[in-house]
Amino acid sequence: MSKDKVAGRLLIIGGNEDKDGQCEILKRFVKMAGGRDARIALLTTATEFPQEVGNEYRNLFLDIGADTATVIYIDDRHTANERNKAEAILDSTGVFITGGDQLRLTSILGGSRTDAAIRQAYLSGTVIAGTSAGASVMSDTMIVEGNSSDTPKKSNLGMAHGMGLLQEVVIDQHFAQRGRINRILAAVAQNPLIIGVGIDEDTAIVVSPDERFEVIGSQTVTIADGRHVIFSNISESKPFDPLALTNVVLHVLPEGYGYDLKRRTAYICGN
Amino acid sequence: MSKDKVAGRLLIIGGNEDKDGQCEILKRFVKMAGGRDARIALLTTATEFPQEVGNEYRNLFLDIGADTATVIYIDDRHTANERNKAEAILDSTGVFITGGDQLRLTSILGGSRTDAAIRQAYLSGTVIAGTSAGASVMSDTMIVEGNSSDTPKKSNLGMAHGMGLLQEVVIDQHFAQRGRINRILAAVAQNPLIIGVGIDEDTAIVVSPDERFEVIGSQTVTIADGRHVIFSNISESKPFDPLALTNVVLHVLPEGYGYDLKRRTAYICGN
Repeated sequence: MSKDKVAGRLLIIGGNEDKDGQCEILKRFVKMAGGRDARIALLTTATEFPQEVGNEYRNLFLDIGADTATVIYIDDRHTANERNKAEAILDSTGVFITGGDQLRLTSILGGSRTDAAIRQAYLSGTVIAGTSAGASVMSDTMIVEGNSSDTPKKSNLGMAHGMGLLQEVVIDQHFAQRGRINRILAAVAQNPLIIGVGIDEDTAIVVSPDERFEVIGSQTVTIADGRHVIFSNISESKPFDPLALTNVVLHVLPEGYGYDLKRRTAYICGN
Repeated sequence: MSKDKVAGRLLIIGGNEDKDGQCEILKRFVKMAGGRDARIALLTTATEFPQEVGNEYRNLFLDIGADTATVIYIDDRHTANERNKAEAILDSTGVFITGGDQLRLTSILGGSRTDAAIRQAYLSGTVIAGTSAGASVMSDTMIVEGNSSDTPKKSNLGMAHGMGLLQEVVIDQHFAQRGRINRILAAVAQNPLIIGVGIDEDTAIVVSPDERFEVIGSQTVTIADGRHVIFSNISESKPFDPLALTNVVLHVLPEGYGYDLKRRTAYICGN
């Protein structure tokens, strides 16, 4: 997906966003999608409980004040290719992709009319939001498996093609809560061009077309920039060998901070 | 403790070192302490099971081939001040400090004859080894509490005075296994002069008098260098606010790699 044509914004959520209290992140999504004029399309493909998850989010978005919120049920590739699903996406001002299993999302949607509609909507200015698995699929290559709280190893990591709305980035979610620094470092070691972005629960990044993002929510976003890596053993090591990786630049950012993906610099918002 | 007078070496172990298989780390300790001429002094003050822990290590060190291995039982400050305990330390070629609770170690030993003997032994060339809690006490300021696998926050961290054998460093142990990156980052945020060293289980660093260390063992050592930090909110944030910390330089090093604490650079051993 060519970068310079994008008009939409992404809201990438680390999972478990507040749904009972201030609902800061979900409110932000509705606001970005047009507030009282927001027409929300809900994609529940990632979860095995689409009815419950779809109903919960629909009610939340209507309570927050969206004009409409419609669950688009897609459970197989046949349905993913139906014209009315693609039209529902294109008619929305905001698409929300729920959590579940990121491989379910890409294996059912990948290459379908719905998939193409999401890209087209994004290019023309629709907000695309995803939480948990819905966050992971945003990047071109995504993490699908990897043990948490373990020494970084090559074997820790399973990668797959994501939906590719954001390039040269790898997203991980439930980040601090599941101790996933090892996964993001192993991904960066594979290709230090890639910027690792680990998003905590109830925390999100708002990505603008100029490739800057702002952090919102109650926890933090961890960024691992490998461009200055000097030593790495990822190519010569065996799958269970521990990783060597030096000179990674790490940032931990709470709300009020931002990051410029092109310049690879953190900044304080409003400064 | 003045740096330029040190003649001894430190072996700082991240806990849970192999005791059934090759025993690489424990063998290295005996070798550093003189091999067949090694006289090991075992300090079990950190644990509430000094008998069991002491016996286990004594048998291991004798099996490995040390000349002698003596458990020095110290459970209170009175005993810590007995001359014969200090003499036993000074008579050894290697002191091994077991795991348990690091505050037990410093609160019982701190300022005692035994404490002074450990410093004197270290200065004059004795190897000082510590595992788990025995690793944490090596630095001048040590981590005594802090939640794992949580977003970095100021309130996560409890610090106390350590034994101070190694300056301008903070050691954490069971590092990847307990997801402790948040604790080390919070410690580095407090004072970016300090280098955070997180040691995984069954992994150790061998610190030479020239302030270089080599990694040994089966897992990795994570180093967080805050000298180039640009933004940090640690001073103005409330205890439960999430941390902001940018431009930390991170290294993940397995066996075969080393780190120069003075120059703050990682290197490949033998190069």
